[in-house]
Amino acid sequence: MKKLKIIKIGGNVINQRHDLNAFLTAFAEIKGPKILVHGGGKIASELAETFNIEPKMVNGRRITDEAMLDIAVMSYAGLLNKNIVAKLQSLSCNALGLSGSDGNFISCHRRPVKEIDYGFVGDCHENSVNIPFTSMLLDHGITPVCSAITHDGKGDLLNTNADTIAASLAAQLSLNFEVELIYCFELPGLMKDLDDANSMINEVDENEVQQLKEAGIIHSGMFPKIDNCLMAVDKGAKAAWIRHWKDVQKEAAGTKVGVAEWQMVDS
Amino acid sequence: MKKLKIIKIGGNVINQRHDLNAFLTAFAEIKGPKILVHGGGKIASELAETFNIEPKMVNGRRITDEAMLDIAVMSYAGLLNKNIVAKLQSLSCNALGLSGSDGNFISCHRRPVKEIDYGFVGDCHENSVNIPFTSMLLDHGITPVCSAITHDGKGDLLNTNADTIAASLAAQLSLNFEVELIYCFELPGLMKDLDDANSMINEVDENEVQQLKEAGIIHSGMFPKIDNCLMAVDKGAKAAWIRHWKDVQKEAAGTKVGVAEWQMVDS
Repeated sequence: MKKLKIIKIGGNVINQRHDLNAFLTAFAEIKGPKILVHGGGKIASELAETFNIEPKMVNGRRITDEAMLDIAVMSYAGLLNKNIVAKLQSLSCNALGLSGSDGNFISCHRRPVKEIDYGFVGDCHENSVNIPFTSMLLDHGITPVCSAITHDGKGDLLNTNADTIAASLAAQLSLNFEVELIYCFELPGLMKDLDDANSMINEVDENEVQQLKEAGIIHSGMFPKIDNCLMAVDKGAKAAWIRHWKDVQKEAAGTKVGVAEWQMVDS
Repeated sequence: MKKLKIIKIGGNVINQRHDLNAFLTAFAEIKGPKILVHGGGKIASELAETFNIEPKMVNGRRITDEAMLDIAVMSYAGLLNKNIVAKLQSLSCNALGLSGSDGNFISCHRRPVKEIDYGFVGDCHENSVNIPFTSMLLDHGITPVCSAITHDGKGDLLNTNADTIAASLAAQLSLNFEVELIYCFELPGLMKDLDDANSMINEVDENEVQQLKEAGIIHSGMFPKIDNCLMAVDKGAKAAWIRHWKDVQKEAAGTKVGVAEWQMVDS
């Protein structure tokens, strides 16, 4: 099977043009098929402020109403996505910016209303990813650049978590590719102690993650990333990594999130 | 050669959701390979107002400075393009939204500074269109939906006239396709008298256009559309039309802009 790297970038690096360009320069140099998934950084919040739109909260959860969706679409799928693509093109990386509606790349279910109506928020499902379309682009040497906007196939765009999109792409494209999923952020990897640069965990499996969570060693802010890594490897991704964005090109940098030994024997 | 329809939509229909949906429903039903090019309507001006950004003018000409470029990218390549694509997907049209940087679809030259520095404005040139990429999409049953944002290949996005983009696509794709270029707007076609619904001109060639211009019969606001039509047919498009958006599906509705008889004999 062909190798494929799926790289997620988010956090502060998105907001700093210098850092973002440094990341994109390194990303462009990575050989072979690759996909970039990007978050939105602070752009949407800043835009909402300019528009005098107060983020709507219900029970402490952020709601995506129509006004906030428009802002997310403008900033993530518009301003940020197109500038990233233009920069990558200038670096000889044949990038193509996509929201989930483009070529029906990623379709999602609108999150069902239970206690909270999250509004225009999409959750990925098992058949979210348009695998033939993605394979076709990759076969033509094109690098999809994916914003965190998907659609429901009924005409509505949906705000969707970029970490989850990256994990769903990794899981579902594992049918056709040997996938490595790499979450890039501002730390060298998963840290036991944020104040100790030498406390990075080299490798964890599902059981160890559970122990580290229970012992309160993993910061709760890391739970979604770790759980997405575990989901992706559980569904067939070859490997999942959490690493510093400056190490994006490096093989085996950061924390490797793997399948537990007993699962490997089992399968 | 395969047939290809390139359809440009702009003006008020972009601003009216009901009209836009009616247009997109008709567009989705058109059989065979097709490309949609859309203008921006009033969205960018409205956004600029919200941001308190005064449109910059030099000698009565509008300038695209960095702030205005960001607004154009957000509104044309973001909000409008992605909503059009999501709507078309819901209508079983496999649309894919593109700015010029996406897949290096359309590269432009930044307009040279003479008396006026227009800022981030791009002009199409003879090799602007990425023909293999466009053909690849069309061969896979994908309908490109093109916003009026291009790029210079050096990392900058450029605001570009949507009418010109449509004409350049028509001209350059004529190498591989039998192209029909259709400009859709709010009138039945080219009118001799705006107050007389029966005054539509059925067909014009370059010589007749020149006469109509000199006689002051064509409204000067129509000059760019007409000239783009003439350019496209001159460079190889099979036909160019100016018609009402409600007639987008109709064969031979509106004004046909053709090659002058002497040119046809000549070539």
